Amino acid sequence: MKDLKSYIRTVPDFPADGIMFRDITTLYGNPAALKHAVDLLFGHFRNDRVQMVAGIEARGFVIGGALACRLGAGFVPIRKKGKLPHQAVEESYTLEYGEATLEMHLDAFGAGDRVLLVDDLIATGGTADAAVSLIDHLGGDVVGAGFIVDLPDLGGAAKLRDRCEKVVSLVSFEGD
Amino acid sequence: MKDLKSYIRTVPDFPADGIMFRDITTLYGNPAALKHAVDLLFGHFRNDRVQMVAGIEARGFVIGGALACRLGAGFVPIRKKGKLPHQAVEESYTLEYGEATLEMHLDAFGAGDRVLLVDDLIATGGTADAAVSLIDHLGGDVVGAGFIVDLPDLGGAAKLRDRCEKVVSLVSFEGD
Repeated sequence: MKDLKSYIRTVPDFPADGIMFRDITTLYGNPAALKHAVDLLFGHFRNDRVQMVAGIEARGFVIGGALACRLGAGFVPIRKKGKLPHQAVEESYTLEYGEATLEMHLDAFGAGDRVLLVDDLIATGGTADAAVSLIDHLGGDVVGAGFIVDLPDLGGAAKLRDRCEKVVSLVSFEGD
Repeated sequence: MKDLKSYIRTVPDFPADGIMFRDITTLYGNPAALKHAVDLLFGHFRNDRVQMVAGIEARGFVIGGALACRLGAGFVPIRKKGKLPHQAVEESYTLEYGEATLEMHLDAFGAGDRVLLVDDLIATGGTADAAVSLIDHLGGDVVGAGFIVDLPDLGGAAKLRDRCEKVVSLVSFEGD
């Protein structure tokens, strides 16, 4: 099959002027590309005894749900504030464009559980950093973080390695 | 394993007074229950030559992503208005509590493609009905709709059968 990168569509000026948005929906919509992305991430983390996959709302839920099933793990949603029905812990952070607060259920997993963080893309890493803080808050052991796309010029993946040894991405867009 | 229903948590008065919210996160968080739910839906639709799984934001993305991979299909996100980066078609509808507009990318799949609609729960069916309209708009063939939870007293699944022959749910909460 073609390189995974070729399945990702670039949309200029979304959601704000000057942002080159890397649109993963065209990869998700291709059966071979979606399967290949899940296979590759599975290969990276299959021996890490992952118990929980924590996926970030909303695009991270798609790859996270698929990967959790493949790894035989549970899935924990990390959501925008106000969406979770039960008692939650929250963490605010700065996005590439804007600000936000993430929440995770306080009983999502137990202390010491082995958690893999998953999202479609890492840019400045603010979202992933907040997600790691949420997992830390519950005493989870962040065994790794997996992304389909990395924008290395924004430095998020490099920064995340200070908090989580194994950071994997499948496609890199340099010059962003 | 225990009945799937036992993994679903009920949260009273969320997101509004008088709503008994069926919280699927406790099922998603259990590896065996998540796998079993995906296995059961896979069994129902494995022979329907599904090409695309259309999942509804955001809880439908988790089970939809997993099911798309399992079926060897692509995944199409049906999102709340303003989230999709490319040209989209939209459909407004009334929720059990409130109003909303859903969008799907205009080039999400081709006319005649076999599409399976997936969400975590069907209540009044307003969301699913709008989703079927979006799939219809692109000329997709809705081969079925799969849900983890049905609230049959609200009549959504029965109504949806007028537009889509094969409507499957795994767990039913009667008396809601």
